[in-house]
Amino acid sequence: MEVDSSRAIANLKELAGYGRCGTGVDRRSGTLADLESRRWLREEMRGAGLNARIDPIGTVVGRTSHARRLLIGSHTDTVRKGGWLDGSLGVIAGLEIARAVQKCAPDFALGVEVVSFADEEGQFLPLLGSKVFCGDVTSEEAGRLRNSEGQMLEDVIRSAGLATHPIARLAPDEHVGYLELHIEQGPVLESSGTALGVVTGIVGMRQDEIEFVGTANHAGTTPMRMRHDAAAALFQFAATWQQECTRLATDTTVWNIGHVLIEPGAHNVVADRAVATCQYRGLEDHQLDALEAAQHRCATKAAEEHRVHLRAKAVLRVPPTPMDRRMIDVMSEAAKSRGHSVRLMPSGAGHDAMTVGRHMPAGMLFVPSVGGVSHSVEENTTEESLACGIETLAAGFTRLAEICGEPS
Amino acid sequence: MEVDSSRAIANLKELAGYGRCGTGVDRRSGTLADLESRRWLREEMRGAGLNARIDPIGTVVGRTSHARRLLIGSHTDTVRKGGWLDGSLGVIAGLEIARAVQKCAPDFALGVEVVSFADEEGQFLPLLGSKVFCGDVTSEEAGRLRNSEGQMLEDVIRSAGLATHPIARLAPDEHVGYLELHIEQGPVLESSGTALGVVTGIVGMRQDEIEFVGTANHAGTTPMRMRHDAAAALFQFAATWQQECTRLATDTTVWNIGHVLIEPGAHNVVADRAVATCQYRGLEDHQLDALEAAQHRCATKAAEEHRVHLRAKAVLRVPPTPMDRRMIDVMSEAAKSRGHSVRLMPSGAGHDAMTVGRHMPAGMLFVPSVGGVSHSVEENTTEESLACGIETLAAGFTRLAEICGEPS
Repeated sequence: MEVDSSRAIANLKELAGYGRCGTGVDRRSGTLADLESRRWLREEMRGAGLNARIDPIGTVVGRTSHARRLLIGSHTDTVRKGGWLDGSLGVIAGLEIARAVQKCAPDFALGVEVVSFADEEGQFLPLLGSKVFCGDVTSEEAGRLRNSEGQMLEDVIRSAGLATHPIARLAPDEHVGYLELHIEQGPVLESSGTALGVVTGIVGMRQDEIEFVGTANHAGTTPMRMRHDAAAALFQFAATWQQECTRLATDTTVWNIGHVLIEPGAHNVVADRAVATCQYRGLEDHQLDALEAAQHRCATKAAEEHRVHLRAKAVLRVPPTPMDRRMIDVMSEAAKSRGHSVRLMPSGAGHDAMTVGRHMPAGMLFVPSVGGVSHSVEENTTEESLACGIETLAAGFTRLAEICGEPS
Repeated sequence: MEVDSSRAIANLKELAGYGRCGTGVDRRSGTLADLESRRWLREEMRGAGLNARIDPIGTVVGRTSHARRLLIGSHTDTVRKGGWLDGSLGVIAGLEIARAVQKCAPDFALGVEVVSFADEEGQFLPLLGSKVFCGDVTSEEAGRLRNSEGQMLEDVIRSAGLATHPIARLAPDEHVGYLELHIEQGPVLESSGTALGVVTGIVGMRQDEIEFVGTANHAGTTPMRMRHDAAAALFQFAATWQQECTRLATDTTVWNIGHVLIEPGAHNVVADRAVATCQYRGLEDHQLDALEAAQHRCATKAAEEHRVHLRAKAVLRVPPTPMDRRMIDVMSEAAKSRGHSVRLMPSGAGHDAMTVGRHMPAGMLFVPSVGGVSHSVEENTTEESLACGIETLAAGFTRLAEICGEPS
């Protein structure tokens, strides 16, 4: 079975015309550009002979007539001033593979269902489309979500005239697994000169707010020993926790304190409130547990030494999602058999595969991001790499179809 | 010579009626309340028989007819939502001592010149009145200064009809020294149960901006070893510098990082810019030098370890101002001879005595601040302490007048 990666790349360029923004795309979920691109996608699917529709929250599905199908897709919405490939690559790769199946392999034991999940980037809720597809969020709950401008999702969809079909849902008897091709959004593949990444799992993420509460005082007249300096406690906490993280980390563990709040925030006033937002990610729960325990130790010590109160709040708990062992093996073999270098790696960013992977076998393939850049109009991947990714994904699908047809 | 501290306290309460703001006062320089209070003060001075006037930038002076006079005063402007005693206490104490001199001691070798310096709190420029009085800023430069609302000082004064006399200037042949009674604005006297503080010097202050510049990256997909994390460098710098300060400090050294900027400031983005504002104060230049050198060491190390660029900018350099040795001795003796406990201490906040003390012998006396609170409508000092301060200042003046009359 042969895919036409040039046609897929041409499709990607056509899709990038919806919401074009300089060298990138601004196609935030619910915007006119987003809705128009979904209609375009549905027509492309129909043109390929797929049974295609847009569901009431905006997810687009198009399937071959096979009773058992591999879901292949991602999302076509973007962040504000985003790139042309983030999400779109996985959807168009699925479309191209479905075209090939329609043309060359209609008698395969396995068909394709192409999917563009709504609102992966979270204008209404991160991973919304895949969450509704998997039943983690009901379509009623989804319809009542509002974006930052106060628009309700069901109003957006209704006024676009899109809500004409029932909700698209995971059907365990029909859907045998999920494959997602995506740009890496990081520097690892490019900097190591590797053609493709096979994702072993999507890291779990925890986010905590560590808040120190002290007493505001004049920074000239209050002796050091009489201070309750919330900012000094934060600096000590942040420095010692990041040191501890370095000591405890594995290759797949990352952490960040990218936002702090210091109040009242004046040069000559001792701070009475200081809040650090700690985000840490890892492939294994026990890694995250170790970083969380270190966070608690360092924060407690800093609060004691600076005589301030400590409040810790867990903001986010997303468990790691391992990818399916067979998907990992099949995709690695597909890459190697085509002569591509391949790296087994975690995904440090969230993806729809994170949601779907909790309900069925899922796999992900990464292509390199130029300069590691993403969520930017500068985001890019070479056409050679795009073709390599699409063709390898197709080879992986073919192998899965073979396995599916073998007597179990 | 006897002063009537009850009358002085009644004056303070009357003055607090100008710009009353709950339990405090909002009498920012140049406001109607500030200008009206200056007219009131001039009339009180005239009522006491002083030769009184308001100069073209708002400084009010009123003097006895003696050829040689001790300047006694402070300021009557306040910060936004300030207290009723900050500044006013020193001016009204001067007025009360001048009244006593007029009544009981017209033949003293030393008279009094009461002064309320304009804009100590810096609506136009911190310590403006004393700077113009001492010739550090010309009256033309002062007149062209603008406040945060864009008003020019000379317009404010002219439209109030106040600019009717030449600028008040320090006259070395007439002014033999300067005494300022002030609230402590810190917790030291109250917490140690001490009645009065005699100021040994006003601390010097340095303020630096320490800026780290790295690279913004996705905090999930960028491996730790490939990051250039400006925020992590800042946390390490701030924590290690504050440790070093603790090691190097004396009793009179203080430091603060009360403001930081972290950009882009998102939870899931590695920061590309982080700026800490470091303020540190001490009575001796060599102390400040040691803290500055430590700052440089810690910042350089943090920048190296986190692979980010360092830019350090000196924002403010105010040298320490020692108080006059004889003023310190006379005020200490005056306190002890009246049975009051006294503490020799630095002033951690700036005062008009900082400007004047560079041009002539200056001394300061502190009374306790309840709870150490200042620059707040909650600021207060007990009436017992106010009386103790005013009476001790008067005793100190009497002793200085005696010394002045002695054959040298």
